[in-house]
Formats: sequence, C-alpha cells, structure tokens
Amino acid sequence: MKSVECESETDIESNKQEGGNQSNTSQTKSLLLSDEWKPYLRPRTIVKEWLLKLRCCFGAVCGLEWYGFAALGILTAFLSFLMDFSVLKLLKAHQWLYMKLDNNSLLQFLCWTLYPVCLCVVGSTFSHNICPYSTGSGIPEVRTILVGFEMPHYLSVTHLFTKYVGLICTLAAGSTIFLGKVGPFVHLSTMVGAYLSNLCSLIQTKHRDNASREMLVVAAGVGVASCFGAPISGVLFSVEVMSSHFALRQYVPCFLSAACGGLTFRLFSMWSGDEETLQVLFKTNFPTAIPFYPLEILLFAFLGLLCGAVSCCYLYLHRTVQQFTKTNSVLKKMLTTEKGLYAGMVAFLLACVTFPHFAGQYMASKYTMKQLLTSLMDSRQWGSQTHNASVQLEPEPWFEWISTGNPFYFSLTFFLLMKMWMLVLACTLPVPAGYFMPVFVYGAALGRLVGDGAAHMFSLTSINPGGYALAGAAAYSGAVTHTLSPALLAVEVTGQYSHAVPALVATLLANGVARSRHRPSFYDALSIGKRLPHLPSLKKVFPQLPSTPVGQVLGGKSVQLQKAAGPAEVQDAVDSSTETQIPVVDSHESQILLGFVLRSELLMFLRHSKNETIEKHLDEVCCIHPISVLLSPHNTIQEAYSILSLVGAQTLFVADGGRLVGLLTWPEMKRILEDLTKEI
Amino acid sequence: MKSVECESETDIESNKQEGGNQSNTSQTKSLLLSDEWKPYLRPRTIVKEWLLKLRCCFGAVCGLEWYGFAALGILTAFLSFLMDFSVLKLLKAHQWLYMKLDNNSLLQFLCWTLYPVCLCVVGSTFSHNICPYSTGSGIPEVRTILVGFEMPHYLSVTHLFTKYVGLICTLAAGSTIFLGKVGPFVHLSTMVGAYLSNLCSLIQTKHRDNASREMLVVAAGVGVASCFGAPISGVLFSVEVMSSHFALRQYVPCFLSAACGGLTFRLFSMWSGDEETLQVLFKTNFPTAIPFYPLEILLFAFLGLLCGAVSCCYLYLHRTVQQFTKTNSVLKKMLTTEKGLYAGMVAFLLACVTFPHFAGQYMASKYTMKQLLTSLMDSRQWGSQTHNASVQLEPEPWFEWISTGNPFYFSLTFFLLMKMWMLVLACTLPVPAGYFMPVFVYGAALGRLVGDGAAHMFSLTSINPGGYALAGAAAYSGAVTHTLSPALLAVEVTGQYSHAVPALVATLLANGVARSRHRPSFYDALSIGKRLPHLPSLKKVFPQLPSTPVGQVLGGKSVQLQKAAGPAEVQDAVDSSTETQIPVVDSHESQILLGFVLRSELLMFLRHSKNETIEKHLDEVCCIHPISVLLSPHNTIQEAYSILSLVGAQTLFVADGGRLVGLLTWPEMKRILEDLTKEI
Repeated sequence: MKSVECESETDIESNKQEGGNQSNTSQTKSLLLSDEWKPYLRPRTIVKEWLLKLRCCFGAVCGLEWYGFAALGILTAFLSFLMDFSVLKLLKAHQWLYMKLDNNSLLQFLCWTLYPVCLCVVGSTFSHNICPYSTGSGIPEVRTILVGFEMPHYLSVTHLFTKYVGLICTLAAGSTIFLGKVGPFVHLSTMVGAYLSNLCSLIQTKHRDNASREMLVVAAGVGVASCFGAPISGVLFSVEVMSSHFALRQYVPCFLSAACGGLTFRLFSMWSGDEETLQVLFKTNFPTAIPFYPLEILLFAFLGLLCGAVSCCYLYLHRTVQQFTKTNSVLKKMLTTEKGLYAGMVAFLLACVTFPHFAGQYMASKYTMKQLLTSLMDSRQWGSQTHNASVQLEPEPWFEWISTGNPFYFSLTFFLLMKMWMLVLACTLPVPAGYFMPVFVYGAALGRLVGDGAAHMFSLTSINPGGYALAGAAAYSGAVTHTLSPALLAVEVTGQYSHAVPALVATLLANGVARSRHRPSFYDALSIGKRLPHLPSLKKVFPQLPSTPVGQVLGGKSVQLQKAAGPAEVQDAVDSSTETQIPVVDSHESQILLGFVLRSELLMFLRHSKNETIEKHLDEVCCIHPISVLLSPHNTIQEAYSILSLVGAQTLFVADGGRLVGLLTWPEMKRILEDLTKEI
Repeated sequence: MKSVECESETDIESNKQEGGNQSNTSQTKSLLLSDEWKPYLRPRTIVKEWLLKLRCCFGAVCGLEWYGFAALGILTAFLSFLMDFSVLKLLKAHQWLYMKLDNNSLLQFLCWTLYPVCLCVVGSTFSHNICPYSTGSGIPEVRTILVGFEMPHYLSVTHLFTKYVGLICTLAAGSTIFLGKVGPFVHLSTMVGAYLSNLCSLIQTKHRDNASREMLVVAAGVGVASCFGAPISGVLFSVEVMSSHFALRQYVPCFLSAACGGLTFRLFSMWSGDEETLQVLFKTNFPTAIPFYPLEILLFAFLGLLCGAVSCCYLYLHRTVQQFTKTNSVLKKMLTTEKGLYAGMVAFLLACVTFPHFAGQYMASKYTMKQLLTSLMDSRQWGSQTHNASVQLEPEPWFEWISTGNPFYFSLTFFLLMKMWMLVLACTLPVPAGYFMPVFVYGAALGRLVGDGAAHMFSLTSINPGGYALAGAAAYSGAVTHTLSPALLAVEVTGQYSHAVPALVATLLANGVARSRHRPSFYDALSIGKRLPHLPSLKKVFPQLPSTPVGQVLGGKSVQLQKAAGPAEVQDAVDSSTETQIPVVDSHESQILLGFVLRSELLMFLRHSKNETIEKHLDEVCCIHPISVLLSPHNTIQEAYSILSLVGAQTLFVADGGRLVGLLTWPEMKRILEDLTKEI
C-alpha cells in the first residue's frame, strides 16, 4: 500500500485558497442572516434563531457534514425504493394486460411489443429533449468528474430529474429490453450528493475546501449500496470502478452513508412488502449443512475461466457495435436527430424476439429480471425434477425455463446465445440505463448451465447448482467491469455467505482472463467511445500516451508577471488570463520562477494603485506565495495527471532548471489528452 | 476518491533507476546460469535446462510474480494451520493434566499456574535472546516499513523463526494470558513475503522495480486472511490499518493471495478435523427466518456507542500503563535485562487470578479463546435456560459461565471488569503476541451482556443475543483499532451474513466515539511508544508536527557537484556522500539546480578519467538526469512525507527559486521526525 498521507491534499488546497475562501464564508453567512428587505421580519428572525440553535445542537455532536452523509444515504435509498415501487407497478400492469388478452394472439403480440416500445420511445425522447447528456450509464462521466475534471451539467438537478424519469421507463420495459439500474443510480446519487454538498456549504459556518469533492466520492459509493441494500460491496465496487487510488480518510464517510442507504432501502422494502424483518433482495434456499464439497472448487475455477472467456467475446462485440454506430452514416444520423425512432425500432425488434409465442418461450421471457435471478439461483437441480414438474400444483420457480418440454440445457444455451447479441444491441439504446444487472443475470445463467450441466452429466445429486449461478454471476459481471467486488455483492444480495470463497475464486480467475493483454473493461470502452479525458481508459487504446513528456505537449506561453511589475502589466495580466493563480518570475529575461500571486490579490492591487500617487511594484504590495510542487518538462503525462489529481483542482507550474515553462490545469490537461488522442 | 494513477510510481521509479537495474538483472541471470567451477556440470546443466523450460511454461500463462502471490497465500496459511495445530495439542495437554489432578487442589493450582508461566518465560527468553525485536504485535513496525522506511532486521528469516516459536508459546498459554495471533501473523506473513520476493527476483528474467514492495503490501493483507480463513475482510483490515492511501493496482494481487490463503487454511482445517466440507472458524447456530427485528437496530446502535466508550477507557488505561513501564525505573530495568523474570511474574499473577477454584470460576476461565467466542455467540438466551441447565445430560456450550449458580450477568460483568486490567497488564508482556483477538472476545462479551440483558430485563423471548455478541465483537475491536473491517470479519468468521448491517452500524458508531478528539488508536499508541517514524501516529500526539515547513528542519549542506566539475571534485563527492543520486548545480555560486547524476555513473566517470590524459568535465561525460518532482522549503513535513512515500524509495530535491537547498530521503526524514518529537 503506497501510504500517502491523505491530509496533504487538504493542506495544499487550504494553503492555496485561504484568501479566496474567507470572503466566501462571510458571504454565505450574510445570505442566511441579513435579508432585511423581505417581509415578515419578526417571524423570520424567530425561525432563523431557532434554526441557528438547532445547527449549534447538531454541530455539538459531530460535524454537520456527517449529517449530510447520512442524509445522502437515506435520500438515495428513498429514491431507489420509489423507483423500484413504480417500476413494479408498471411491470404488473403489463403482465395483467397480457394475461387478460390470453385468447387473442395478435392482441397479445401488440401488447407485448408496443408496451416496451412506447416506454423506450418516451424515455428516449424525454431525456433527449430535456437533458441530452442523460442517456447511458453515467459511470464513465462520474469517474471523470471524480478525477478532477469539471463537468457541471452532469450534476444539475434537471439532469437528476430527467435521468430518474427516463430510468423508470427503461426499467419498466422489463426483461424484454433487459437493462438495469446500477450505473444510472451511481450517477443519480452523485447528483444528489452535489446538491446536498451545496446545501451543506450554505449551512456550515466552517468552510471546508474539499467538502464537495468528498461528498461526490461518498455519493458514488452510496449508489450501488442503495440499489441492492448491499452497503459493503457497494462501497468497494465504486472504489474499484471509480479510482485508481483510494484515500482512507473517505472510508468512514463512505461506509456511514452506505450503511444508512442500505438500511433505509431494506426498511422501506420491509414496510411496503409486509415482510416481518429486513431481508436480502434476492431470496435463496441454499442448504446450510454442506454448502459445497472441496473438490467443487475446481469446477468453480473452471466456471471462472469460462466466464472470463465469454466476457471477452461480449466486450469485443460491444466495442465493434459501438464503433459501427459511430461510423455508419445512417445510424450516426439517426442517433443524433431521431433518437426516439431508433429506440422504438430496436425495442420493437427485441420485443418481437422475446414474444412468448415465438422464440421467447425458449428463454423464459415472461420472467422479470428479479424472477430470472431467483429462478437461476434456486438450489434444486432442474434436471432431476423436470419429470414431475407438471404434476405439482404450484409451478416451480423455474417453470418457464422448461415449459416447452425441452431439456433445461437447451433453453439455457438458447438464452445465452440470444441474449448475447440482444444485450449488445440494447446497449446502443439512447436511454438512461445500467449495464451491470443484465450482465449479472447473464453470468448467473452461465453458472447455472455449468452447475446443472455437471450435475446432469456426472449424475451428482448432491451438487447445488444455485451456488454455481451465484459464482457465475459474480465472475461474469466482475470480468466485464474488471472488478472483484461482485463476488461480495453476490453474497450480499443473496445472504449466502457460504459461497463467498468459491465466488471469489471464480471472480479472480475471470478477471485474470478478462484483463489479459490490457483489454479495456466495459466502462473503459464507454469512456473511449465518448472521448472522455480519462487517462486510465485512454491508455488501454493509446499505450504510448502516458509516457509522453509534458514539455512536448504543453500549450503556448502562459501569462506571467515579473517581480517588479507595475499596475499596467498587472492590468494586462488580469485581462488576458482567467487563472486564479498567476506565476511571478524574477524578470522576463531570466524567467526564474519565484512563486505565484492570487488573482484576487491582483485586483486588490489594481484598486489600491488607482488611489495612490506613487506607483508601487507588485512585490511591495502582494504576497508572492511559494510553489509547493513543481513539475519539470520531462515529467510524463501520467505523472502530471497523478499529481494534478492528488493536489485537487489546482494549478501546477512546470519549470526547467528554475525557469518557468508553463502552467498545467485540468482544462489544459483535457486539451492535451484530446489533442493527443485525435492525433494518433 | 482521489484518483491518482498508481502506475506513476512505477514510472517515476523506473525512469530513475533504469541505469542501476540493467546491471542487476544481468547479474541475477549469471547467478543462475554460469557457476562453471562447481562439480557435476552435466547433470546441473540438464536440471537447469529443465528448470528454465519450466519457467518459460509458467511464464507463458502469467507473470511469475502471480505464482509468488499464490505461494505466499498458501505458505502463510500452512504456517497458520501448523501453529493452530501445535497450540491445540499444547492446550489439550494442559487440560488433560489439570483434569487428572482433580483430587488435589494444590497440584491443580501448580499445574494451572506453572504451565503458562513456563511457556511465557520460555517464549520471552527465547525471543529476547535470538531476536530482541520479535516481541509484541509487529503491526506498527510493518506499517512503518510499508510507508517506505527500511528496517531490514524486521524482515529476516531468523526473526520469522523466533516470532513463530515465541507466538506458539504465547498462544499455548491460552485464555489465562488471553492474547491472540493476528498482529504477529501479519508480521510473519510480511517476512514470508520478503523472503519470497527475494526468491522471485532471482528467478525472474524481467526485473520489476517495486516488486518487493508490492509483495510486502500483499503479504500484509494475507496475514489476517490466513489467520481466520477470511479473505475479504483480511485484505480490508490490512488496508485500513496499514495505509492511508491504497493503490488499486495492488487490489487483485492482494485478493488472489488472500483467497489462496483463506482456501488453504480452511482445506487444512477440514482435512485435519475430519469435517465433511469447508467450514467457518467459529460455528454459530443463528435462526435464519428472522435474524432480527427492525427496532433492534436501535439496540445495536446503543451497543456501538457503549463499545466506543469502553474502548476509550481501555485505550486510556493501556497508554497509562505503557507510559508507567517506560518511566518507572524498576520496571524499566526489569524489562530491559530480565524479560523472562518479568514475563513469569505477570503470567503467574494472571494465572492466580484465573485459577478456577478462585476468581476464575466467575469468568469461565476454563474455556479456550475459541470456546469463549463460541459460547458468547450462541443464539439461545442464557437467562431463560439457566434453570434446566443442570438437568440436561450434555452441558450447554455456555455451562462454565453459570456453573457457580450466579446469574449470567454477574459472571459477564465480572469477566468484563477483570479482563480489562488483566488485558492491559498482558499487553506489557515481552512476548510475541497479538492484541486483536482478546479485544474481539471482550467485545463479544460486552455484546452478550447487552443482548442477553435486554432480553432478560424486557422479557423479549425472541431476541437473539448471539447477534449482539457478534456486533459487539465487531464494534469493540473496530473501536480499539480504529477500523471498520471487523464488521465484515465478524461476518466472515461466523458465516452469519444476516447480521452484517447491524454489525456495520454498531462498528460505525463505536468508531465515531473512539476517533473523536483525535485519540490515537491502539496501534498508534504502540507506534508512539516505540518512537517509530510513522507520521500518521505521531501527529496524534504532536499536532503541530505535520505543518512544520521542511526548510526549517532540513539538515546541513548536502553534497553537490557543479556542471563543470572535474575528477577531483567528483572524487570528493563520491567519498563524502553515500546517496545514489547526487545533485548537479550550474555553479557553486549560482546554486541553480540542473538535475542529478547517478553514483554509478560518477564511478564510471572516475574510472574513465584515470585512463585519459585530457581532463573532461562532468557534463561532457555523464548524463544529467532531469528532476521530476521538486519540493520547496515552504512545503510542510506532511506534504514531503506524502510525496516521498508516493514516489517510493527515492531522493527528493528541495529547491528555492531554482536554487538547491537540500536533499530529502527516508533516513533524513527519520532523523527529522526523531529530532522534532524529541524536541517538543
């Protein structure tokens, strides 16, 4: 563990921005207290006094930001529950309608196809018109924001609303479209986090510099946790996907928020569903006495390798189709202007294929995502019980898989083959949608096939195929996203701790296969497709990119001031630069870098110089701040990127032998990355 | 998540040390291939060829370091199993002897007291004589090593052997001494890791710079995993304790190694114990239908707060006693020269108190640590079943707790009060010992008291006190070590996933209480007591330390060369400095820093200059390497420490306005920290 003291970031940032923030804080305070021109002065004063007292009370227990973290978890969980609730109602409505039309196949076909088509068209058009960025998963954008790049339109409240409504439409289209909610929910919780962080900074007396950034980091962790009520793996998943370094300072806030989120989500589920206690999301019935035999570890390892290999196929297909939609002129035009039409067409195609009187009967298309997962993770062997399934009064939870009379391995194989291309196609849909859950279900089906297949082939009656489905789900989703935490996630959503070690083994091996030869993960491919300035993804495609020296790519001459600059030069600098930190050199000839001055101080200097008669020099009035970390032009882009994200949203100065060469900021870094990836 | 690209470290290091390592690699190769002077040339050649082919085969699948990681896990787990096995035999021998002497109280007393006394004296004297550093936990030293400081004697094979044998003695003394194995095992696995990393670097063709460091990081994670067969929480615990930043590059190796370790540990346990399948370490019998009612969350939260408060008392007592043993002249002398005597005296005192015919009967002292934990985590309520306990044929697993006829809350309270000071006393024992497990058991007792007490007081028959014991164990051990992962650890060692959320809530609240007011954790206190140069611990006691500017504390003038230096000046510099990187300035007058030269190049320069007649300047022969990261004297110690540990074991140059001020290396940093903490 490279043990870098996390507080250093805070220190560096706070040193630099001290000047700017004091005025900010007092401004915040005045916003809260002194609106004397508004009506009802007395009642307002009383309410305000009470609010201030309340703030003091809360602040006495712990910092106000901790309430923010807890609120974030609770809010996100509430949003998640509300979404699940609405989606369930919409799905039930569809099922009810389909059942009512039982006599007429044509009407059934129309009901089956038009319902998801309408939802997709509505979702796509709605999100396109209100907030065009809201389609897709959102995880690539969130991790770019967390590195340090500013993308304010990705965190607005409009965006939150659009994504929320659009996602409900997508999920209500059900297993026909076969998309999930994890990715968008990470994005949604980040937006909630950004909003809460603004609220916190309004209330807090003590301004903390990186508070908003910290809240975003926490929010990314909460997303998954409130999606499944799985706090531990939620945080770990977001750590793995989002960052390449994790500061342990953010560990406790993350887990606090995730625990609040997970608990709230489960409590809501309990209250709404008349359950007696807190339950896991996907109930299972594994035998507890002997979860698995030691030799089965080998079969789990084989499953892991298989999942890794299949994930490579899937990722390759996904990249190819993604590339095709970008290059094919018809599709490109359609996806730019006629998103609704495209969404409708794809949804119609998918719905036709899954129609239960057509191919759908061989792939259990009547099941929702949740039913699919529950049926796949059932601990009983399908093979051994097919014969008497029709005799029983209540159908088995996997009845749909064998309803045609074909053996289970036929329907599972058919499901796997069909869903592969259907999922790749669904990924091109311009709607807000998550791509984790379908992959998780796909992996469960793969695991089920291996587990039940082995039991059937070698007549192993004591094997539990549900365990293989669990391990397969973990391994396949881990391989697609290049993460290990799905192993824990699978345990958390089923509550089957006994299978943690096999799931971990399978996930490790699947990751080994998927990560070999520096293949990009699913999210990396999305990042690259969207040309986001995310270096860890970009370097999978442009391997020489990180080792390019900064000196080669640094932009033109930056604005600089000499030590003895007068008001005229300062005015020039203020006019021509928008940076908050402007470098000061010994003289324009020597170029020896002395430090930097803050823009605010320069403005003050200009104001003072107007009132005074004697012209003063810059170094007589302004404080020249020392530079803490200096780069050389020989530093690689990778190093500059790392240091920039370590010290936060700050300017880095590049100097060669003490002489100023240029500035490096996030916008500059973005330009560099865009230039280089265009060039190559 | 501050997303700093981890590869940067590698890049920086590899850039700097390229020159030095090429020669290293070829040297390694020659070691393996060309020992022509040894006998049996032909057989050796054949064996070597086969070995080389084998290496190629292995290397074709994945890098050889991955086999190293897997081997590390398996080896550590084997060591752990072997230790458990030996300890079990020794404990059984003691029990057998004690039972045989059932008629004679005096002999029983002697057996009860002298057995642990002998073991402690042997363990203490053995470790003192062979390797005096091997006493204590080892975690503070390991985390200092992981930051970047070199402490080679802490990773030697002698140390490994001494600690292993000493630890067996300590554990065999059983619940009388009440110490565990987690801490030393982390240290042991780090030593195994260091050894394996040397082995790997001998075999590998491609030399990787930070391979040994990476292996140590992984090893720290494996320690806990192989101790309990708990791979996931093991890695997380070591991440939390060891570092303040975690590079995700090390995530997969850590989990691979931990999964191998956990699996091997459980497989060994299975094979040795005739169990049918892989089992968790501490078996529990929680009801699965309704693990807990939602309102119980409040009781769990109360338990968390209570655990936090008690942990503060414990940590305060521990610090006070630690200070006392340092300042009291008699104890100080005894602990320096007569470790065996001191260990014997303390062990005798502890054994007297726990003697079952004396106070021991009220605190279930006949139970081993494992039995204690199993009895505390039993799901049945003790209170409701005390009446018919004597009627049953086989005693309940908690029989010892109520054998005196006193109600359970009396014995639990007595246990908690007595063990508090006994544990603090045991912590002063100069033997290799872990301090995590006793705290875990103590927390379980606290949880049991709350759970069973609440059930007894409010007559709640459906409550499961075992769940409270689980949550209490997690919360208390989390509070003492300032970590959250015990919540997951408690789940992993019992397999009771249903209680993950309550345990997490309790642990979060306990951590909140324990961390308030910047109190040092248990390991922090050990670090401070041993005056280790570990900044995150030191700053808990010296809050102004991290913000001291580097310029104030930097040592005297460093050795430097000017660009135009001749052989005489270079010879001087080589003689007077031991650094591998020597700074080059423009001229001694201007002091403008240009870069650095490697020591190896200077030696080459000197060799060449002897052969040539015309005197050449430094810059004509040697390559002056550019400096990647430059510090200013205004940087704080915290910042310097962070950057130093980010870039690995490298030299940092400090310059002010382009002029060289000094060098900063780990030994220099150690000196600075020692000076400052002495001063204040």
